[in-house]
Amino acid sequence: MTAGTRTVSVPLGERSYPIRIGFDILDQAGPAIAEATKARRAAIVTVPAVGRRYAARLERSLRAAGVKSVRLVVPDGERSKSLRVAARLFDDLVDFDADRGTAIVALGGGVVGDLAGFVAASWMRGVPFVQVPTTLLAMADASVGGKVAVDLPRGKNLVGAFHQPRLVWMDVATLRTLPRRQRVAGLVEVIKHGVIRDAALFERFEADLERIIDLEPGPTLDVLERSCQIKAEVVGQDERESGLRMILNFGHTLAHAIETLLGYRKLLHGEAVAIGMVFAARRSEALGHAPTGIADRIQALLARAGLPTEPPDRPRRAYLEALRVDKKRRGTHVRFVVLRDLGRADVVPLTPAEILPPGAIPDDGARVRRRR
Amino acid sequence: MTAGTRTVSVPLGERSYPIRIGFDILDQAGPAIAEATKARRAAIVTVPAVGRRYAARLERSLRAAGVKSVRLVVPDGERSKSLRVAARLFDDLVDFDADRGTAIVALGGGVVGDLAGFVAASWMRGVPFVQVPTTLLAMADASVGGKVAVDLPRGKNLVGAFHQPRLVWMDVATLRTLPRRQRVAGLVEVIKHGVIRDAALFERFEADLERIIDLEPGPTLDVLERSCQIKAEVVGQDERESGLRMILNFGHTLAHAIETLLGYRKLLHGEAVAIGMVFAARRSEALGHAPTGIADRIQALLARAGLPTEPPDRPRRAYLEALRVDKKRRGTHVRFVVLRDLGRADVVPLTPAEILPPGAIPDDGARVRRRR
Repeated sequence: MTAGTRTVSVPLGERSYPIRIGFDILDQAGPAIAEATKARRAAIVTVPAVGRRYAARLERSLRAAGVKSVRLVVPDGERSKSLRVAARLFDDLVDFDADRGTAIVALGGGVVGDLAGFVAASWMRGVPFVQVPTTLLAMADASVGGKVAVDLPRGKNLVGAFHQPRLVWMDVATLRTLPRRQRVAGLVEVIKHGVIRDAALFERFEADLERIIDLEPGPTLDVLERSCQIKAEVVGQDERESGLRMILNFGHTLAHAIETLLGYRKLLHGEAVAIGMVFAARRSEALGHAPTGIADRIQALLARAGLPTEPPDRPRRAYLEALRVDKKRRGTHVRFVVLRDLGRADVVPLTPAEILPPGAIPDDGARVRRRR
Repeated sequence: MTAGTRTVSVPLGERSYPIRIGFDILDQAGPAIAEATKARRAAIVTVPAVGRRYAARLERSLRAAGVKSVRLVVPDGERSKSLRVAARLFDDLVDFDADRGTAIVALGGGVVGDLAGFVAASWMRGVPFVQVPTTLLAMADASVGGKVAVDLPRGKNLVGAFHQPRLVWMDVATLRTLPRRQRVAGLVEVIKHGVIRDAALFERFEADLERIIDLEPGPTLDVLERSCQIKAEVVGQDERESGLRMILNFGHTLAHAIETLLGYRKLLHGEAVAIGMVFAARRSEALGHAPTGIADRIQALLARAGLPTEPPDRPRRAYLEALRVDKKRRGTHVRFVVLRDLGRADVVPLTPAEILPPGAIPDDGARVRRRR
C-alpha cells in the first residue's frame, strides 16, 4: 500500500465497509476486492474511455488474487443510466454465468456506479458490490452510501435501491487524466460537505482551492478524507434517508430540475449542483433561515473555481413542472434543504411555488410576456 | 371483521408484518392498508380478470379509508413478469404523481405480486407494499416473505429484491371463482410446507384433501394458517435466504428447469413444483438421505389431487442446461433441497449431473439414439 493511504469506515453494523483513499493504488485493488466480497468471479462495469485506461490493471490485480473477471462496457453518459442498459447488463451476466456470489465492480464515474449498483442490487436479488470511482464526483458523493439508481425519461434516479458496497477503492491518481472542467465539477460535492456540515472544510477550500484543483496530494487527500468522513457519518446515522441524510441533497432540488430541463447534457452534474447550492443558500437567506452573506461567500468560491452559479434561462413554469417530479416530494411539498449557517443545514417542507417564487430565477416566459 | 379470521405474524423486528386470513374480508382491506402503510395514495397492480372482479371493492374500501387509488392493469400470465412491463408501471407511477409515500398494492396471483413487489422495491428506492393475493399459490407462497422479482428471457426471477410487504391480506373467498385446476395447483406449496416442516400438516391433507380442494372454510383456514405460520417462521429466521430459507425451494430446482424448458406455458407453477417435489423426494431416497416410501406417499397424495407427478419428456442434456442457470447455484454446484424424513428437509450442494444422473428422468434424446 502506498504511504499516505487513508481509510474511512462507513459505520453500518454488519454491513459496515471501508473506503480506501490513496494515490496509485489501483494495482492493489484485486486482493482487497477478493477479501471484501469473497467472490471468485467479478463483472467489471465501465465506460469505453475508462475501460481502455484502467480496466486491464484492475483485471490483472483481480486475476492475481484468484478472481476471474469479465469487462462489461456501457456507453458513456447519463443516458446509460436506463432500464434498457441495465437489461443489457443482466443479459451479459447470464452469459458470464454470474451467480449469487459474483461481485459487480463499478469502474468509472457516478453514472457507472449508479447503474452497476442497481444491477448489483437486483441481480439475483442482490450480489456483492464494489465501487472503484475514477471521477472526483463519484469519489466525493456517489460511490459512498449505497444509493443506486437508473433514470426514467421523465425523472432522474426514479428507479433504484439502497445497496451498500462492500468496499470503495479511490485511486486519486486516476483523476489526473480528467479534463479540468470535470475535476472542478467533481469538487462541488466535496465543497457541499463543508457547506452543510463543516465550516473548516469550506475554509480549507477558500485557502487551497487552486492546489486542490491541481490535485496536489496533501490537500487533495485531506479534503477527500474529510469529505468521506462527513458522508460516512451522515449515512451511518440515516442509511435510508428518512431524516438527517436528506441534508446531502443540499443544492440538488434545483440541480435536478435544471438537469430535467436541459436533458442532462449541457451541464455536468456538479455544475448543476453548484448553481443549486448558490440558489438554495440565497433562498435560505431570503426565507430567514440563514444570516446574509453566506450565499455570496459560496458563490465567490464556486465562481473562483470557474463554476456556473446562475440558473439557465427557462420559464418559471417549466422549473415548477420539473420540481413536481422531485423524489423528495411527499404530497404537495418538497423537502428542501436550507442552511442555518455555514456548516449547518436543515430540511424544510416547501411547495414548488415557495421554492421558486416569481423572480427567484430568470423567467424567460415572464419576460417575453412583458415585452409584448 | 368476519368471525374466524386468523392472523399470523411474520417476525422481522421493526419490519414485522401481519398476515390476515379470512373469508369475505376484501371490503375491510382499505383501513388496514391505510394503517399499515400510512399512505394516502395507492397504486393497485392487477390483471384484467381479477381487476374486473375485485378491484372496485378494494378501491371503495381504500376510498372510505381516505386513500386515493389508481388501478394499473397488466396482461395476465408469467410474461408480465418482465423488465418491459415493470418499465411501463414505472411510467404509470410518474403519471399518478406517485411519491415516496405512495403504497403499491398487488391484487392477484404470484405474477402480480412478484412484479408489483419489484416495482415497489425499486420505485424511488422502495415504497410501502401490500399483498392482496387472490390465488391459493400466492397465498401459500409468493405473498409472504418479501421475495420479489421479474424474469429474464433466459431465466426465472433473475432480477429482483427482498422487499417485505407491510401487510398481507388473504380473502379466501376470492379463491371460489378460480378453476379447480388452479386451486389444486395452488395447494402444492401448502402441501410442500407440510413435507419439509410439519408431518402433521401433510397428514391433514391426507385426511381432508377433497374438503380443502372444495374450499370448505374450517379445514381450508386451518391448513392455510399453519402453512403461513411455517413460512413466517422460516422467513423470520432467515430473511435473505442464506440458510434455512432455502428449504422452501424444495421441489423447485427441477420445477424451474421444467418451466424454462416448457416456456412457462403448458404447466402451472404448482404443477411443475408437484413434479419437482416427487422428483426431489425420490432423489433424496436414492442418495440415501431419506428412508424409502416417502416419495410414494407424496406422489400418491399429489396424484389423488389430480396433479402431474412425472417430468415432461425432454432430453437430459436440455434439463442439465436449464439447471445451469439456477439461481441457487454457486460455482458448479446447485443447492439442492433433500428430505431427511417427512417433515424434515435439508440443503446439499450437488452438481447438475448428480441431481440428474442418467435415467433419473425420461431421456428423449437417449431413447432416440438407442432406437437407431
